[in-house]
Amino acid sequence: MEQRVRVLIDCNDEKGLVYKISKVFYDRDLNIENNREFVDKEKGKFFMRTVVTGDFDSQELNQELQKAVPNNAQIKVITPRVKKIVILATKESHALGDILIRHEAGELDAQIEAVIANHDILEPLVRRFDIPFFHVSAEGMSREEHEEQMISLIDEQLFDYIVLAKYMRILTPKFVANYPQQIVNIHHSFLPAFIGANPYKQAHQRGVKIIGATAHFVTDDLDEGPIIAQDVIPVNHRLDWKDMQRAGRDVEKIVLSRALNLVLNDRVFVHGNKTIIF
Amino acid sequence: MEQRVRVLIDCNDEKGLVYKISKVFYDRDLNIENNREFVDKEKGKFFMRTVVTGDFDSQELNQELQKAVPNNAQIKVITPRVKKIVILATKESHALGDILIRHEAGELDAQIEAVIANHDILEPLVRRFDIPFFHVSAEGMSREEHEEQMISLIDEQLFDYIVLAKYMRILTPKFVANYPQQIVNIHHSFLPAFIGANPYKQAHQRGVKIIGATAHFVTDDLDEGPIIAQDVIPVNHRLDWKDMQRAGRDVEKIVLSRALNLVLNDRVFVHGNKTIIF
Amino acid sequence: MEQRVRVLIDCNDEKGLVYKISKVFYDRDLNIENNREFVDKEKGKFFMRTVVTGDFDSQELNQELQKAVPNNAQIKVITPRVKKIVILATKESHALGDILIRHEAGELDAQIEAVIANHDILEPLVRRFDIPFFHVSAEGMSREEHEEQMISLIDEQLFDYIVLAKYMRILTPKFVANYPQQIVNIHHSFLPAFIGANPYKQAHQRGVKIIGATAHFVTDDLDEGPIIAQDVIPVNHRLDWKDMQRAGRDVEKIVLSRALNLVLNDRVFVHGNKTIIF
Amino acid sequence: MEQRVRVLIDCNDEKGLVYKISKVFYDRDLNIENNREFVDKEKGKFFMRTVVTGDFDSQELNQELQKAVPNNAQIKVITPRVKKIVILATKESHALGDILIRHEAGELDAQIEAVIANHDILEPLVRRFDIPFFHVSAEGMSREEHEEQMISLIDEQLFDYIVLAKYMRILTPKFVANYPQQIVNIHHSFLPAFIGANPYKQAHQRGVKIIGATAHFVTDDLDEGPIIAQDVIPVNHRLDWKDMQRAGRDVEKIVLSRALNLVLNDRVFVHGNKTIIF
Repeated sequence: MEQRVRVLIDCNDEKGLVYKISKVFYDRDLNIENNREFVDKEKGKFFMRTVVTGDFDSQELNQELQKAVPNNAQIKVITPRVKKIVILATKESHALGDILIRHEAGELDAQIEAVIANHDILEPLVRRFDIPFFHVSAEGMSREEHEEQMISLIDEQLFDYIVLAKYMRILTPKFVANYPQQIVNIHHSFLPAFIGANPYKQAHQRGVKIIGATAHFVTDDLDEGPIIAQDVIPVNHRLDWKDMQRAGRDVEKIVLSRALNLVLNDRVFVHGNKTIIF
Repeated sequence: MEQRVRVLIDCNDEKGLVYKISKVFYDRDLNIENNREFVDKEKGKFFMRTVVTGDFDSQELNQELQKAVPNNAQIKVITPRVKKIVILATKESHALGDILIRHEAGELDAQIEAVIANHDILEPLVRRFDIPFFHVSAEGMSREEHEEQMISLIDEQLFDYIVLAKYMRILTPKFVANYPQQIVNIHHSFLPAFIGANPYKQAHQRGVKIIGATAHFVTDDLDEGPIIAQDVIPVNHRLDWKDMQRAGRDVEKIVLSRALNLVLNDRVFVHGNKTIIF
Repeated sequence: MEQRVRVLIDCNDEKGLVYKISKVFYDRDLNIENNREFVDKEKGKFFMRTVVTGDFDSQELNQELQKAVPNNAQIKVITPRVKKIVILATKESHALGDILIRHEAGELDAQIEAVIANHDILEPLVRRFDIPFFHVSAEGMSREEHEEQMISLIDEQLFDYIVLAKYMRILTPKFVANYPQQIVNIHHSFLPAFIGANPYKQAHQRGVKIIGATAHFVTDDLDEGPIIAQDVIPVNHRLDWKDMQRAGRDVEKIVLSRALNLVLNDRVFVHGNKTIIF
Repeated sequence: MEQRVRVLIDCNDEKGLVYKISKVFYDRDLNIENNREFVDKEKGKFFMRTVVTGDFDSQELNQELQKAVPNNAQIKVITPRVKKIVILATKESHALGDILIRHEAGELDAQIEAVIANHDILEPLVRRFDIPFFHVSAEGMSREEHEEQMISLIDEQLFDYIVLAKYMRILTPKFVANYPQQIVNIHHSFLPAFIGANPYKQAHQRGVKIIGATAHFVTDDLDEGPIIAQDVIPVNHRLDWKDMQRAGRDVEKIVLSRALNLVLNDRVFVHGNKTIIF
């Protein structure tokens, strides 16, 4: 079948890998449209993302590649498709809105399956776009009870990724463990500065001259997951913390959408607590 | 005497301050060339930097301004002059070199009185510029002994500011207390991220996508003094920590020189643990 | 009446202006909340934006200020209010969408009165927000005929500013003359580079390493009006011109919204072909 | 001979290139330390920069690679070495000084053979570093006469690249033709904005909010050669054109040194009027 796929390879490094991998493509008369590699010499790891076109069977290609590379290799042969996402939010609309507008314009390589929020403020906005909105109030519940409701609702959806678009609740390790490398969060600071609550207040108090935002995969450790994208803007003494928050929102939403786009296009390898981005 | 001065006022805020201050200038027929104010409403503080020209006596102007504003006001009437600096360094030449080149070009509003280092590697470079170089080795000494030697050497110099141009030793509170708001440091990270030793290794380990540098006044708390200037550059997974260090040097030297220039031009007010910069 | 106003003064520079102006405030017992001035020495012009609070009559305050400053002064005493805007668009939704989301969140200090477009593609998006959408097709019309229809439709609206959110038609001098300093445009390049059609193609062809966007007031000269805000992002050889366009959209929308916000908050003085921004 | 080389390949694109090239490495048991490729689909061109290590003969490797790729291929097998540069300057010391300091610190992968200037102002600075300085005054000479003297002096040096570190004279096509892809210039604007004389005056007059600098190879067309690196900084209405010039110098020197470093490390392919940078 004539097709275009993304081949992702993550394995131990050894001599001859590029040759062996490209030989598999060459022997099948495939065309390499785009190719990027990275070797982490310190850790002895090899990463490759190749876009190939041609007439082939994906499963067979995967098997041939497995034979060509070291045993422990993780190989994915991905046929590009519109992925599905579930968005979690709270009250702020900037990050969510940025995704909704891209979605509406067909510029997001994803289908938004649902927006789930712990407040109902964003319901009218989401409804405007005819996207299912679910309100799971946390009032009068323990963190665990609330999360159970969230999880059961999330698990009813079909999705590839969960996007935390300013979802302002801390996730338990149990929640996170359910969705490894599937949760993308935007943190409203230039991590690792100002971990935790109200980073803008912290930034204002510290008198920094630059503020930023960080998009990352969520892992057990709060705000400690692999960073996907970061950006910053200059600030000065004239801004109080609410001004900083306002200014920071533009960075937050752009960084989240940029990271999401990288993830949706299979451009992000997770490597320990870091990312390799092609 | 016909002159141009910088008037710096730092006092409690109250109604009518701009009027009362500008009246002092007006009554003496002075011309305001440049004027910037800032009110910190939360703390109830007023800051003003005005450049005035005219025929007046500075001391008398200061006294008249004192009468016009609240009791606790700190007022400075500064006749611009080439200030004197002492530079402390260790082994790296980029920040020091940047200052030396500006000094040589007459672009630094300061006279370098001496460079003092705990290693002798930079001696040839400094000697090229006919600037006194002193080597105070720390070998076989306690921190206190070494600092005593440094202090006694520093105190032999005439200087307005001490510039830490990648001086890689931690200063004791006693040292810092000797020179309040007189020590400008460049920290090789985007503070408050990566406080402490080897920030580039920390940054690499954390997998950040941006690194930075921070120029700040030195206070008791290590890396916690008022921030004067910060800047950043993007990095990616291809850089190991030494690459990051190399890339970071350009930011470090530019940020330090920018901060130094602000300080030398009396553009920096210290306000608690922050700065107001005009 | 107890109120807060923005006082904007634009006049020839002369000695004593700050004193004379602040005396007017002082004599009325007004409080200066915020004050910024700028003197263009080369042109001999003085600009001031002051936020004052107190019990006073705006018209009388304006008259008193007129007496205090040179004859030709332009003085505005503005009571902050939600301004009205009309948005012109074509097919792209990113800049429009960014404004719509801010509008919906109550973060835009403006009421969107209408969106007018020369294509109907954006109608569904605008209708989602219950905002009037008008389609004025240019098909089969001369530029003049189309503009006449646009003007007559625009003039039926109440508005303070016209926002060109990627409106891809060139405006005639006649159109522009109708709305002096009222039209804010986003140009998809870092002006003055790549004036005219398809800047991204031009940028790609030139092989630049950075692309940008420019928000400016529209004047007779195409892409030559006073610049309000600019920003940039790095690009590289991997991006074709459509990738650049995609990447550029994020800059375009943020720069337009930032500029719009400055204009709506009366922070922008037009000074010849430049802006003073407080 | 055990060695590490940089292999640069620039050829027409065709299927199987990565395989055929990596096969040459594999058959010789070479190790790929680093590999980057780029295909310009529009132009049908393939670019590759690979760092390989192993026991091999460079000339033979080159010949084998020539057999593996299309006929017109440009292949270079480069043994990293300290390259030689000649610097041309005029009066300003910031860009020159930045290179001198890096040179002194051993951080520049180049040996400065000589500095040649059309004024003698920089002689003392250069002499401090024990580097040959030549003054070729242009006074009373035609452009052609002056260039002839420059060329004959340049041609007496051994060098790989000529660096224009703020050399403020326009070069004739004849001069440029002598040194194809060998002349690196820093232009004091964000090209293609403000081509030609005094870009800072032009930028000030236009009222831009960002200024920049551009390092590029010099070709016949003034300021139109392939861009290697660019960077920018924000400015505002408070800066007159001399302030912009002062602020711009930091960008100029950093951008020039960054570009020079890329060139010295064989990371820059010239591709028509653009660059591919690995």
